[in-house]
Amino acid sequence: MAKKLFGVDLGGTTVKMGLFDETGGREQEWEIPTRKEDGGERILPDIAESIRATADAQGIAKEDILGVGMGVPGAVIDESLVPQAVNLGWKNKDAGKELSRLTGLPVAVGNDANIAALGEAWQGGGKGFRNLLLVTLGTGVGGGIIADGRILTGAAGAGGEIGHIHLEDGETEACGCGQYGCFEEYASATGAVRVARRVLADWDGESTLKGREFTCKDLFDAAAAGDAAAKAACKKYGDYLGKGLAICASVLNPEAIVLGGGVTKAGEVLFDLLKPSFARCVFPGCAAVEWKLATLGNQAGIVGAAKLILDRVNG
Amino acid sequence: MAKKLFGVDLGGTTVKMGLFDETGGREQEWEIPTRKEDGGERILPDIAESIRATADAQGIAKEDILGVGMGVPGAVIDESLVPQAVNLGWKNKDAGKELSRLTGLPVAVGNDANIAALGEAWQGGGKGFRNLLLVTLGTGVGGGIIADGRILTGAAGAGGEIGHIHLEDGETEACGCGQYGCFEEYASATGAVRVARRVLADWDGESTLKGREFTCKDLFDAAAAGDAAAKAACKKYGDYLGKGLAICASVLNPEAIVLGGGVTKAGEVLFDLLKPSFARCVFPGCAAVEWKLATLGNQAGIVGAAKLILDRVNG
Repeated sequence: MAKKLFGVDLGGTTVKMGLFDETGGREQEWEIPTRKEDGGERILPDIAESIRATADAQGIAKEDILGVGMGVPGAVIDESLVPQAVNLGWKNKDAGKELSRLTGLPVAVGNDANIAALGEAWQGGGKGFRNLLLVTLGTGVGGGIIADGRILTGAAGAGGEIGHIHLEDGETEACGCGQYGCFEEYASATGAVRVARRVLADWDGESTLKGREFTCKDLFDAAAAGDAAAKAACKKYGDYLGKGLAICASVLNPEAIVLGGGVTKAGEVLFDLLKPSFARCVFPGCAAVEWKLATLGNQAGIVGAAKLILDRVNG
Repeated sequence: MAKKLFGVDLGGTTVKMGLFDETGGREQEWEIPTRKEDGGERILPDIAESIRATADAQGIAKEDILGVGMGVPGAVIDESLVPQAVNLGWKNKDAGKELSRLTGLPVAVGNDANIAALGEAWQGGGKGFRNLLLVTLGTGVGGGIIADGRILTGAAGAGGEIGHIHLEDGETEACGCGQYGCFEEYASATGAVRVARRVLADWDGESTLKGREFTCKDLFDAAAAGDAAAKAACKKYGDYLGKGLAICASVLNPEAIVLGGGVTKAGEVLFDLLKPSFARCVFPGCAAVEWKLATLGNQAGIVGAAKLILDRVNG
């Protein structure tokens, strides 16, 4: 029988799970709730039970399962230890070892943003690239670096956390991380709204965004509809985004930059907005970057998790 | 007989060469001139001949030589192809393949800054760290990234070229790369002098540096001697250096940052100068960095080159 893999994307609300064949074909997808009570003690037994039940239902023998990959919302050391995952209530959780004990299977664990990058590099927008940067533009800015086909984990699992590179001096509002002037304060969906609010504060003309609450989507919609203030704000947003990505590209020299997350619903216009400042700021030797949109959406996690364990068992 | 390795550091003026045993012990070091005439066509035959002569003189049989590692001043693709090395007159030179043909030995080629990082990680200031950033503060700012024990090469061999991350908006003097506001415009030895000149231009008090040409060493010497303007300039230099390193650390999450190059002759004071701005700008999850000075000096190249070929032959 063909060998199987499980990919698990452990989030704060739900656990997305997938059954894959060893070529990466997705055979089944499902999800279970993340039960966070008792300091998150029930999460891994729930996952193990769901894997067992699925294998039983499909008639898959244990010896035909290569292993389980799992992405978690936090830094991960040595593909197992999670020093802290605030959204799960975990602290110093040896998640890989524990899930391996519960399932009797090989388990590899990674940070969810890194795992998503691996998924996009394997089957998504970054397919075919061995050196890429995935940037998720959502409530915050997440990142994952694939260097020569492998996740760049860093010393403490914080490699690729590019949302917190220092972008601007003189910022007065603190970032969630406690510092001032982080990339994500400008380039996240929340950041786009902040940037726009500042543009509007200095805007003398009319704007449909004036005097009301608005979202990142509202901002891009208003710009698409021709609102001059919104267009100026989007241009400013693109300047920040391009500058931050240029800095990352100058450090890493990626073949491709793959953008994902809610902000990318704006579509290809995002590339038009960021490219001028990217070109202005990037080291010329690193300027030749392919621009891609992430294509796996919220399935990137299970796909990348499956790839993580596949790479592990293949050595 | 114990196996041997050759490490070659190919510079614009001289070729440094070393004979190593397979544990990395240095058995012999020497150098030959870099003959750049004829578009650099003589360089590799000269190196091959010198390796052959040394092996003969030492009575080393060919089958006891594991291979040759070589660092070159330019980007390198697939450990062999050098698209351009201005200082050597090379263009699209398949250096690894050619030297392998000339010597009959396995050859691996890398960028000299990356190779130096590998050398420092193996036997120098970064010994024992699998994730580190080497930064060379000289005429320019060079860099090399070791991620999980391996060089991060990037798509076109420009990985770790951190001297050209965009650090400052509004810069009016162009960097050598053609952009404005690159890290090395402030953090190199030349950059330190530029920073100091700007501080002096606004300095109302006395200074021993006023009205004369001075070097980076003069600047640090003046600061050490108590010159207030020089001290202010050094502080400003440290702010730039700390900020640039914080950005790199936030992308890469290194265990250690190893500083080398001429500016480090200033010694440990450099760390005192950069740490405040590093702490202010770095992502807290990446703040725990060990600070080291490079220890191999201009031998880092031959040591790293030997390690490169050792890693290659060991798979």
